[in-house]
Amino acid sequence: LWGTWDELRSRRFWRSLLAEAAATLIFVWLVLGPPPALQPALTAGLAAVGLAHCFGEVSGAQANPALTLALLCTHKLDALRGAAYVLAQCLGAVLASLPLGPWALRLLASVWGPWALGELGNRGNAGQALAMETFSTFQLVFTIFAVEDQRRRGAGEPGGLAIGFSVTAGALAGTFSGGSMNPARSLGPAVLTGIWDHHWVYWIGPSLGAVLAGLSYEFLFASSASREKLVA
Amino acid sequence: LWGTWDELRSRRFWRSLLAEAAATLIFVWLVLGPPPALQPALTAGLAAVGLAHCFGEVSGAQANPALTLALLCTHKLDALRGAAYVLAQCLGAVLASLPLGPWALRLLASVWGPWALGELGNRGNAGQALAMETFSTFQLVFTIFAVEDQRRRGAGEPGGLAIGFSVTAGALAGTFSGGSMNPARSLGPAVLTGIWDHHWVYWIGPSLGAVLAGLSYEFLFASSASREKLVA
Amino acid sequence: LWGTWDELRSRRFWRSLLAEAAATLIFVWLVLGPPPALQPALTAGLAAVGLAHCFGEVSGAQANPALTLALLCTHKLDALRGAAYVLAQCLGAVLASLPLGPWALRLLASVWGPWALGELGNRGNAGQALAMETFSTFQLVFTIFAVEDQRRRGAGEPGGLAIGFSVTAGALAGTFSGGSMNPARSLGPAVLTGIWDHHWVYWIGPSLGAVLAGLSYEFLFASSASREKLVA
Amino acid sequence: LWGTWDELRSRRFWRSLLAEAAATLIFVWLVLGPPPALQPALTAGLAAVGLAHCFGEVSGAQANPALTLALLCTHKLDALRGAAYVLAQCLGAVLASLPLGPWALRLLASVWGPWALGELGNRGNAGQALAMETFSTFQLVFTIFAVEDQRRRGAGEPGGLAIGFSVTAGALAGTFSGGSMNPARSLGPAVLTGIWDHHWVYWIGPSLGAVLAGLSYEFLFASSASREKLVA
Repeated sequence: LWGTWDELRSRRFWRSLLAEAAATLIFVWLVLGPPPALQPALTAGLAAVGLAHCFGEVSGAQANPALTLALLCTHKLDALRGAAYVLAQCLGAVLASLPLGPWALRLLASVWGPWALGELGNRGNAGQALAMETFSTFQLVFTIFAVEDQRRRGAGEPGGLAIGFSVTAGALAGTFSGGSMNPARSLGPAVLTGIWDHHWVYWIGPSLGAVLAGLSYEFLFASSASREKLVA
Repeated sequence: LWGTWDELRSRRFWRSLLAEAAATLIFVWLVLGPPPALQPALTAGLAAVGLAHCFGEVSGAQANPALTLALLCTHKLDALRGAAYVLAQCLGAVLASLPLGPWALRLLASVWGPWALGELGNRGNAGQALAMETFSTFQLVFTIFAVEDQRRRGAGEPGGLAIGFSVTAGALAGTFSGGSMNPARSLGPAVLTGIWDHHWVYWIGPSLGAVLAGLSYEFLFASSASREKLVA
Repeated sequence: LWGTWDELRSRRFWRSLLAEAAATLIFVWLVLGPPPALQPALTAGLAAVGLAHCFGEVSGAQANPALTLALLCTHKLDALRGAAYVLAQCLGAVLASLPLGPWALRLLASVWGPWALGELGNRGNAGQALAMETFSTFQLVFTIFAVEDQRRRGAGEPGGLAIGFSVTAGALAGTFSGGSMNPARSLGPAVLTGIWDHHWVYWIGPSLGAVLAGLSYEFLFASSASREKLVA
Repeated sequence: LWGTWDELRSRRFWRSLLAEAAATLIFVWLVLGPPPALQPALTAGLAAVGLAHCFGEVSGAQANPALTLALLCTHKLDALRGAAYVLAQCLGAVLASLPLGPWALRLLASVWGPWALGELGNRGNAGQALAMETFSTFQLVFTIFAVEDQRRRGAGEPGGLAIGFSVTAGALAGTFSGGSMNPARSLGPAVLTGIWDHHWVYWIGPSLGAVLAGLSYEFLFASSASREKLVA
């Protein structure tokens, strides 16, 4: 009986309960979201796996301002490098949209819906889209932090694939917002087409989700997490 | 000739025959099932891989009451923790359905069919759906037990991916029931929409399949399985 | 110059040329084939990965009479075990088709085309289907032999995934025949529906392809292959 | 402050900035491209993973003249072997198209669009298609060079899967050109159907992209890259 009482008072017990609730919450949310389109979501996840091999050793292949911000907030990146990375990412995203041009981008939006450009459709309002982006980015960045942590400790499962799968799952769950999870990815088409309606959603949502994921992993779920770390 | 006779009398020979029959049975059943929709099935498998990285070390990232029950029945989890996990999972699933709301959930069902909510469609009856859920969960939980066993022995293949693939394959085979394989995943939308018809199917089927898978792996197929273990 | 002449006369040089021609042949053939349906092909590959974890250590999780025959021809399996495995596989396949019943199987064929049942459609003739099945099974069984060989030598890449991918790729390329690659998988629905037209195609094609793949790997491409082995 | 100044002057800092810009550029370009068809792109990536197991140890399983050219330009292959490989690849591609025949190939093009045969559709002009092929092949061959480099150093992630994912991602992004990324793959159907319009695009684009990728990886991004190497 005392064993049970001790378990009920232990930090580990409640943390594992929280983990089960969070895992089921994320799983059901992801599964319930009807995705706008399969193919862009699939491409995003597949590309993330390949890019991690291409540039992972050089810069981390973050390719996402929200992720860079989360790494900054958890002291895994200094401010100068963080700012320079975000600028480089925005530049890359705009360059990627250039050869398509405004006309091709509008055609794209008419085929896949406005989400293809990281814009808001008329299925939901800005608040719902913000919640979706925050949530989808949370699960993605949480996976990235967990994989990096396991990699440092030499765990066996191929984490790069898990990150790619999280990108696709998050994009497939983006019912109201398209699952951009990446401000740079939304910035490129916005610059080209000149459509800036609700663009803030794709900066605030992913940034909020990424920072929350980074902090909650580092200070709550990581095997090295402790109350002291949270205060420091 | 005596070698042949010995082989015919050996436990290993008959177990490998059973394995071939079971493997072909599972393979053909999975392939023959016309899935209700590709995208939710794909998302479920991809999400399972990422979540195993996120929460696997904290709580096992079970996220499924049926799996928790199977671990309980094979003495891999104590009763207090098992009960608390199921409650946490149900809470998480209901929370995940909240932001969508009843209206969005009904819209979802009209796009993907009632299976998207873990409900029974009109293509089959409750008995067929029960059989389907039992079977799909059996192959999923059997894979989970096998992967955990191999991981303990340090085998090389990435088992987390195999589990994710089994989730997708099982969901793709859910002709009559949608391949929920997870009571919590069906509970969330039921609470929100208030539709409880045949909801018992999604508790009895997965639980039965999961417990059968756990017991048959532990006592029949595991490399450490023995007749003594079955009696004890 | 003498180096070039020596290279031209070396067995290794011509074998690598043959490998490039074969790899491109297989790649282009697979890519050019318009698949009957994505979902059964995907399910088959995903299921193969999970089943290799479930039953791989018990019986090899062959689940395919054509593969069992190829292992028999390359002396990796004795005759008694081979025959018993084929019987077990056929039994499993028929059992898997039972709960669907003839009516559901015909419905399935009307949705996915006759290929879903491992039957011949009207897009091609029996000769083309035979060639397709032979070829698709060749690339699958060749991959299985290569992966098993690399696993024995402790190579790093996850070969179980590669086998699953080959199953899906082969099924996706089955323009005229549906890419069954597995006599048992075609036998199940045939027993239930009583339709045996061209059923021989699904026994001769996969068996021919599998045996050719096993022999050519063992005696030509394997790192341990030698002319002596071919004669012996 | 001096630390910051030193960082700004370091080669590593600017290289990592370039990596972030390039990664985001590639990611956004891949995601923005509406693919002509999911299934051929998926098959190509799955086939690449299996073929790497089948023939990787014999010849490298290049199966792509553009890749062979890139290996030639970076002195990883001698001229005789390179020329013989390209001939073998073209032979294999033509042989693969033979059993389908002109009639089946035209049928294929009417289902999937001309891209299925590695031909130009009417959605874009030859210049856009050339840019697309160059870019898609660049990201593929860059991934292959990075994976080979990491494999030599014994890195843990399964690089064969990353290469397969890059094949699919590149094919899914081939808006105007179909994402052939492989001259041999376009040659086969052209020989059979006798349609050679814009066929040069599928030789110049992939070759250019592949050589650029090989050179930029070897001389700029590889961990062993140095200014001396570039000059030598």
